[in-house]
Amino acid sequence: MSEPSGSGSPSDVRPQGGAGRRWPRPPLSSLGLSPGKKTRLSRLLYEHGPGGGTLLILPIDQGLEHGPVDFFANPASLDPEYQFELAREGRFSAIALHIGLAEKYFHRYAGTVPLILKLNGKTGIPSDAQAFSSLTGTVEDAVRLGADAVGYTIYVGSPAQDRDFSQFLGVRRDAERLGMPVIVWAYPRGEAVAARGGKESLYAVDYAARVALELGADVVKVNYPVASEKDKQSPAPYNTLALSPEQSFRKVVESAGRAMVLVSGGEKIGDAELLEKVRMSMDAGATGIIFGRNMWQRPKADALRMTRELHAIFREYAQPPA
Amino acid sequence: MSEPSGSGSPSDVRPQGGAGRRWPRPPLSSLGLSPGKKTRLSRLLYEHGPGGGTLLILPIDQGLEHGPVDFFANPASLDPEYQFELAREGRFSAIALHIGLAEKYFHRYAGTVPLILKLNGKTGIPSDAQAFSSLTGTVEDAVRLGADAVGYTIYVGSPAQDRDFSQFLGVRRDAERLGMPVIVWAYPRGEAVAARGGKESLYAVDYAARVALELGADVVKVNYPVASEKDKQSPAPYNTLALSPEQSFRKVVESAGRAMVLVSGGEKIGDAELLEKVRMSMDAGATGIIFGRNMWQRPKADALRMTRELHAIFREYAQPPA
Amino acid sequence: MSEPSGSGSPSDVRPQGGAGRRWPRPPLSSLGLSPGKKTRLSRLLYEHGPGGGTLLILPIDQGLEHGPVDFFANPASLDPEYQFELAREGRFSAIALHIGLAEKYFHRYAGTVPLILKLNGKTGIPSDAQAFSSLTGTVEDAVRLGADAVGYTIYVGSPAQDRDFSQFLGVRRDAERLGMPVIVWAYPRGEAVAARGGKESLYAVDYAARVALELGADVVKVNYPVASEKDKQSPAPYNTLALSPEQSFRKVVESAGRAMVLVSGGEKIGDAELLEKVRMSMDAGATGIIFGRNMWQRPKADALRMTRELHAIFREYAQPPA
Amino acid sequence: MSEPSGSGSPSDVRPQGGAGRRWPRPPLSSLGLSPGKKTRLSRLLYEHGPGGGTLLILPIDQGLEHGPVDFFANPASLDPEYQFELAREGRFSAIALHIGLAEKYFHRYAGTVPLILKLNGKTGIPSDAQAFSSLTGTVEDAVRLGADAVGYTIYVGSPAQDRDFSQFLGVRRDAERLGMPVIVWAYPRGEAVAARGGKESLYAVDYAARVALELGADVVKVNYPVASEKDKQSPAPYNTLALSPEQSFRKVVESAGRAMVLVSGGEKIGDAELLEKVRMSMDAGATGIIFGRNMWQRPKADALRMTRELHAIFREYAQPPA
Amino acid sequence: MSEPSGSGSPSDVRPQGGAGRRWPRPPLSSLGLSPGKKTRLSRLLYEHGPGGGTLLILPIDQGLEHGPVDFFANPASLDPEYQFELAREGRFSAIALHIGLAEKYFHRYAGTVPLILKLNGKTGIPSDAQAFSSLTGTVEDAVRLGADAVGYTIYVGSPAQDRDFSQFLGVRRDAERLGMPVIVWAYPRGEAVAARGGKESLYAVDYAARVALELGADVVKVNYPVASEKDKQSPAPYNTLALSPEQSFRKVVESAGRAMVLVSGGEKIGDAELLEKVRMSMDAGATGIIFGRNMWQRPKADALRMTRELHAIFREYAQPPA
Repeated sequence: MSEPSGSGSPSDVRPQGGAGRRWPRPPLSSLGLSPGKKTRLSRLLYEHGPGGGTLLILPIDQGLEHGPVDFFANPASLDPEYQFELAREGRFSAIALHIGLAEKYFHRYAGTVPLILKLNGKTGIPSDAQAFSSLTGTVEDAVRLGADAVGYTIYVGSPAQDRDFSQFLGVRRDAERLGMPVIVWAYPRGEAVAARGGKESLYAVDYAARVALELGADVVKVNYPVASEKDKQSPAPYNTLALSPEQSFRKVVESAGRAMVLVSGGEKIGDAELLEKVRMSMDAGATGIIFGRNMWQRPKADALRMTRELHAIFREYAQPPA
Repeated sequence: MSEPSGSGSPSDVRPQGGAGRRWPRPPLSSLGLSPGKKTRLSRLLYEHGPGGGTLLILPIDQGLEHGPVDFFANPASLDPEYQFELAREGRFSAIALHIGLAEKYFHRYAGTVPLILKLNGKTGIPSDAQAFSSLTGTVEDAVRLGADAVGYTIYVGSPAQDRDFSQFLGVRRDAERLGMPVIVWAYPRGEAVAARGGKESLYAVDYAARVALELGADVVKVNYPVASEKDKQSPAPYNTLALSPEQSFRKVVESAGRAMVLVSGGEKIGDAELLEKVRMSMDAGATGIIFGRNMWQRPKADALRMTRELHAIFREYAQPPA
Repeated sequence: MSEPSGSGSPSDVRPQGGAGRRWPRPPLSSLGLSPGKKTRLSRLLYEHGPGGGTLLILPIDQGLEHGPVDFFANPASLDPEYQFELAREGRFSAIALHIGLAEKYFHRYAGTVPLILKLNGKTGIPSDAQAFSSLTGTVEDAVRLGADAVGYTIYVGSPAQDRDFSQFLGVRRDAERLGMPVIVWAYPRGEAVAARGGKESLYAVDYAARVALELGADVVKVNYPVASEKDKQSPAPYNTLALSPEQSFRKVVESAGRAMVLVSGGEKIGDAELLEKVRMSMDAGATGIIFGRNMWQRPKADALRMTRELHAIFREYAQPPA
Repeated sequence: MSEPSGSGSPSDVRPQGGAGRRWPRPPLSSLGLSPGKKTRLSRLLYEHGPGGGTLLILPIDQGLEHGPVDFFANPASLDPEYQFELAREGRFSAIALHIGLAEKYFHRYAGTVPLILKLNGKTGIPSDAQAFSSLTGTVEDAVRLGADAVGYTIYVGSPAQDRDFSQFLGVRRDAERLGMPVIVWAYPRGEAVAARGGKESLYAVDYAARVALELGADVVKVNYPVASEKDKQSPAPYNTLALSPEQSFRKVVESAGRAMVLVSGGEKIGDAELLEKVRMSMDAGATGIIFGRNMWQRPKADALRMTRELHAIFREYAQPPA
Repeated sequence: MSEPSGSGSPSDVRPQGGAGRRWPRPPLSSLGLSPGKKTRLSRLLYEHGPGGGTLLILPIDQGLEHGPVDFFANPASLDPEYQFELAREGRFSAIALHIGLAEKYFHRYAGTVPLILKLNGKTGIPSDAQAFSSLTGTVEDAVRLGADAVGYTIYVGSPAQDRDFSQFLGVRRDAERLGMPVIVWAYPRGEAVAARGGKESLYAVDYAARVALELGADVVKVNYPVASEKDKQSPAPYNTLALSPEQSFRKVVESAGRAMVLVSGGEKIGDAELLEKVRMSMDAGATGIIFGRNMWQRPKADALRMTRELHAIFREYAQPPA
């Protein structure tokens, strides 16, 4: 694997005795951000949440993507007010959701909890064969509501990828015109992806990260790549790589280039595993995490305890604005 | 099932000796409504119909959706003037219909019967496999006609769901810009829905209610979920839930969050059953009902008798503006 | 003077022994109103205020037109919340004001007090020689806020009249497109008016009423014409007419044609005089009154007493919707 | 003078033994602000500067309005970088300037110093007889740059007032559409103002504050009214009022209603006088101050010492968000 | 084969003793270019790169088209900064890439390395059966960034060709309006192409070049046609032509007419072969080459050595501006 690129010199060793290396994040000033994008991202990176240039984001779009089924684990979480409270009390960098929840629930938190307006989505009901997320909101909606970023899902590799790129073009242009940072949920999908190792393979995640960079993402949300037997179906040389999980994720961060990387939480996992995942991600140069079910499917007190632990970890990775 | 959320404290017991609990509706002031939406909804909720924050709506879009076949039961109902008269005499909160009927029949009732302009529709002729309702009117049409809300059908789960979301985006944005309340007819549809318990399953209705909330509905019209053997095909935990009809519907109301809930009448049913359905819905926190065939397929005198009974029931559920 | 035109047969004699005749108002159905305009005007004429097809409107644009000087007589009236409360408690048909007060104060009264958005205005500071009121809001603002009408001041006879007509064209067209009733404040102004009897002369008021009709007003607000020596400077035959105040005002109502007439209150006057002015206006076929300073410069209790008297008078003039 | 209106109950007495009364500021939640405006204003009021709902703003538009002449007192101040550094080190709530300085100097401070984009201006060279400030930027420029508010100068009473109102309409509408707070520099101007007591008279300042409220300002910047012999030329009752400076300023704050009040610094004055002016303003319900020359015409160390004193004062007037 | 067309008289013999003929390139003045297009192309042809009317272009869109897989051969190349450095140090005429890389990496090289903004693309994941590249940027983006040309891929023969033509129409029109040169990546694709000799056949490449000319390309990028057994499936007379590689390529150049021709590098090949390919192309009238993987998959020192060789060759083919 290559040396860290475009990101200054890495810190030498991981302080807390780990074997791994800690890769620095590229300074904000190197990212070609317009003043508006820089202003808005700075709010999330330095003025809210753990700060120090990190991101701790609470998504609540699962009611659309998966349906109310996700809320059974913690019935209180069915009420979006719950997630807003959690974001406020847990001092998240921002909450990410669709226009309907923003219109109906954000007004009480305007000025307190930063908003990321998720701009496209779909339900989990129809087949994913032609996966495509339609717009549910616009960049101008985000501006109107005082959001600090927008989110957009690209299904990399889907047969509907061409419509997706076209739709994203409009979003990207509006965002550029209005100084609004764009966070791309970069998700590999579709049968061609499945045939090459699957959506969790390094091949797929790595490619998706690069696509987000190429299309204009300021931040890219990726899933952690998972090695499996199916990797053998990936194109060379992915089919023969023998990378540690840390190396694999570092590879993805490098492919994302000057797009900051957010790690997706995915389904609820154990605490130790989760915290280890966070450290590994931050060591590899990630900017932060976006954890939904791992947060609001817990009892609130437990979630707040976890956010305190996350804040503590993130403080270790603080970098000054630059 | 969880405690009532986002709606203040519930009334403790049902006053008139019922076994069930009566759940309050969230106050209008908590819904994040713009002044225009609040003004228009207040007219329907407090100035017309039964009042007290309830809705009794008469739809007459079945001529488009089903064809004239629905009017054979009461031939007088074929003339849209019939439904306008019924809405006026029965003191409905509003009448809901498409642009053609609005243009040709509403002018005589302008200022007397509030109008909900239904903005999209389809015929019942082509297969429902790719169910999608095209626009028949616009929010600006509704403003021009003096309507107090617009209606839009989303077929949740349809393979054409992506086009539906895109089309709805335009409607939602115009409605926001012009202060026009949006009522979403949230209908599960398509083979994937059929394979998971069907369009009347709690899974499907519950998901549809949440989708409407996420996309920006101010009011959501849902069908009453119907338990059946097919529920076993629903995703867990829906496949093993053992909820009473009251509990199921309450679940749906909670998923709709700060979108007010209208109960659909569906096909004509017996009077006792119908009134019981209304009470059960209102107990569960519904805002009102939208009954078409159950109203205008009866002889007019019978329909007016029924509306008086409905007014009486709704008075029991009156809440002050707030 | 001609017989009442376009307005059915007049009631024969004034019931309470008056010498004068009572002229009916033209039925709403005769006015060529679009459904949207009819719907919105019906709310003001029949659903709020005294009803029966009358209008009792509370204007609070004097803070812009005259400055805070008008509020010294009743210091509580400096706070716009005062006028909103008065409109609500006194059951006015609507409150009329500019966008700034609408944005900041209306939200609490949305759904309770109907709104007339005044669309243009000026301060009383610069010379009136080129009197012209610029737009402060738009018809779309009015729609967005849920207003039931817009107000626009035309300075008839002003040297800036050409710009005024052009500006009004845009308002009138937007209002037509969106079904929004237009109330024209028809005010004679300028040195040419002064040279022909002055802005209170029958010549000037009569001409202004006709201009409003010609340009597309749905309702016209006029001042009561005041006979004086200066009438001799008016063009023939105005310079030799010897009409009673009642006849003069009836003349103006006829010139306004199918534009409904609102009588302006002007400066605060005595109660008996005010009530007499109201009766005289209604006898002459006026639709209602728009009284500001005569209302909110009084102590509130006194104002509410006066509104009760006005409601009682207006009930005498009720006409059914038609 | 009337009791405080629309602003909850006043605190009873000034804690630190002052003779005067301390008037509270209206809570943010009462101002009818959209979520976007609320979010952006909250950043200035609570997240930057002294906080606690106060504003300490540094304007640097004098280079346009007066020319480089203002920078001779402190030559370092000629470089706009100086004011940016001062804003950052002195922890101002925001810096206010025109598009040129924003484009050329803000990028280094994006994310650190909040921006208020001043949208119109003029030079001091032509006569003020027809005072009118043309647009130099747009609300969309402000959004693009990540500004938290826009500033607009209205010359109340100027013969060009009609063009000013028209121009402001476009700004106000864009700001509403994009959720951008509007700060109006409300300046009386013109010969008619001069003839009625002058631009510093209570009559003029009071009227200007109300005009800003009526036209849609969220915040209004006013000069402190100055009593003089010329007040006798003001319209009654202003010509006979005998108000203390505190009472005069409180009068202006009340006329501004739900528009927050910023006090202008004007020319450089002595420190004691300046601090006393600040206290008096805050006691009267002002939200904060906008001091330019009083800040950057001093040596920097002196200016920073002064900002520390201002921060200390403002802390006394902190109110919680509501 | 026909005589060179539209391009003046060819140079008579190849100076350095080659057997082949050297065909001149058409003078810039003969191409019907608007002043803007001519200005921008002149920068690439004469002011940067080898000059003399030639083009040496470095593309870096493979991260999107192929994924990060292409960067394994030279890990440093994963960082787009690498290609920018290579373009600068190797004195390329321009670098060609997508909007995301342009936004994030170009700012440091603006004014140093000319930019070609690639406007459409796709990933290599879904099947090529319906090959279509969606827009990722716009001509206006290119203008905004200071690009000197835009690139657009047309998949000639793809079943999605109709959508492609439509999409290109918009690009071509914007480019015409804004004076922006258009470089068309003319790629034969699809099963119908495969059935007629394949995408590398002379039939296919020749047809693609003409299509680019017909649709409005200013420059066309083609692959070198490769003779094979499959040519027998090409339509007559392509199925029986017996042309040398030089003749084949010259045929393609002639079909491109007044669109300048760029030769694509394709996969990495040996140095001697590459240089020979360049000479052959230039002899045949090509304007230059666009070599990506052949450049940045090498160690940088090696790549720079190669660019020096290419510069030397291009100097031989210099033509004066005309």
